[in-house]
Amino acid sequence: MTFSASVLTLYPDMFPGPLGHSLSGRALEKDLWRLEASQIRDFTTDKHRSVDDTPAGGGAGMVLRADILAKAIDAASPAGDPRPRLLMSPRGVPFTQARAHELAEGPGAVIICGRFEGVDQRVIDTRGLEEVSIGDYILSGGEIAAISLLDAVVRLIPGVMGNMESAETESFETGLLEHPHYTRPAEFEGLSIPQVLTSGNHRKIHEWRMAEAESLTRERRPDLWDAYMADEDDVD
Amino acid sequence: MTFSASVLTLYPDMFPGPLGHSLSGRALEKDLWRLEASQIRDFTTDKHRSVDDTPAGGGAGMVLRADILAKAIDAASPAGDPRPRLLMSPRGVPFTQARAHELAEGPGAVIICGRFEGVDQRVIDTRGLEEVSIGDYILSGGEIAAISLLDAVVRLIPGVMGNMESAETESFETGLLEHPHYTRPAEFEGLSIPQVLTSGNHRKIHEWRMAEAESLTRERRPDLWDAYMADEDDVD
Repeated sequence: MTFSASVLTLYPDMFPGPLGHSLSGRALEKDLWRLEASQIRDFTTDKHRSVDDTPAGGGAGMVLRADILAKAIDAASPAGDPRPRLLMSPRGVPFTQARAHELAEGPGAVIICGRFEGVDQRVIDTRGLEEVSIGDYILSGGEIAAISLLDAVVRLIPGVMGNMESAETESFETGLLEHPHYTRPAEFEGLSIPQVLTSGNHRKIHEWRMAEAESLTRERRPDLWDAYMADEDDVD
Repeated sequence: MTFSASVLTLYPDMFPGPLGHSLSGRALEKDLWRLEASQIRDFTTDKHRSVDDTPAGGGAGMVLRADILAKAIDAASPAGDPRPRLLMSPRGVPFTQARAHELAEGPGAVIICGRFEGVDQRVIDTRGLEEVSIGDYILSGGEIAAISLLDAVVRLIPGVMGNMESAETESFETGLLEHPHYTRPAEFEGLSIPQVLTSGNHRKIHEWRMAEAESLTRERRPDLWDAYMADEDDVD
């Protein structure tokens, strides 16, 4: 079964966009995954083709209407569709590498690109939308969030990455930030590659990298460091 | 002074991509910001135009060379360029809305799109690159991360959003996730808009929204909730 992504958006021309290049673009050409973008506006019924209206209770911004969006979702994802329905939204549960793996192992995803002003809560409730956030910042809409999520997921679909690339991924997934990297030239603007890396002593190289990864994580991401230490304690 | 973004990438064709549409696209047309994407490969000197090499000390993946990338950075951002130099990387400091505001108030940004295998540490050190992460997941490259960051920043540049839109942003920036939204129709599949929102009682509407925002944040983002409560304590 091929991973199938259906995106509901007011800007279908944004797709595939960056997903048509590089790794995900080649995978799309090879039919290792599929992408379809639908225009929510096609499901309007009035002559102005309006998809939004002012918020009940007042306030700034516009709200995407439940009835219009429900029709778009039902067309893209009829009853019995096993794919999760994701609503890209800064209110959502933070997207993580673990969730990317889960999605990559499944049949695909229906992705609704919200407007930042919001979506009528009743369509979230009745259509079982799972709100997902790619980070604590506000985008102009859910489209770029959907592209980020799909890029992270698609590279994990079997066959998309070569072996060399996937091995490297696993090393990131230790719960630590990655150690520094060096490559040729041996000297750059008077700076050499740390001697241990050219020593040929694999145990020492491993120890150095581990120590660097730990100190970087502790310094830059105390939240990840605490989680990592908690896991270590569990192993004891 | 116009906000100016210089992106260094192996995939310049990915730009402007989604940034050429919607809010950021209209702002680009109006010259409210500028975007230039340079091909790192143009700074190679060998006939194969190689930009990367195997990691010193062994291991999977390839590392972007310090000498090539330094030349590309120096061309895009000569000495005296006041713009921060950002390296999109999962090892970076998490990007936030506060950082988006800071960047939007500045002269622009030089953004280097890393490969996930990594960049030679010596170019990070000598060129003062600030590593920035858009979230705890791995993308196929830094390009989509750069697009996300720029979208978040550009919408905050003065003149890009209308007043109605910016007001709504500020309400998100209270440190809480947003309350649920509702709009017409009054009834959708048997579900009504919560009565308080159609009561016309502004105080009650405000209280209801605040209570909803607090309970959603507490449930879905204990990390934000803790930070919010700590701030409240500071005010007392």
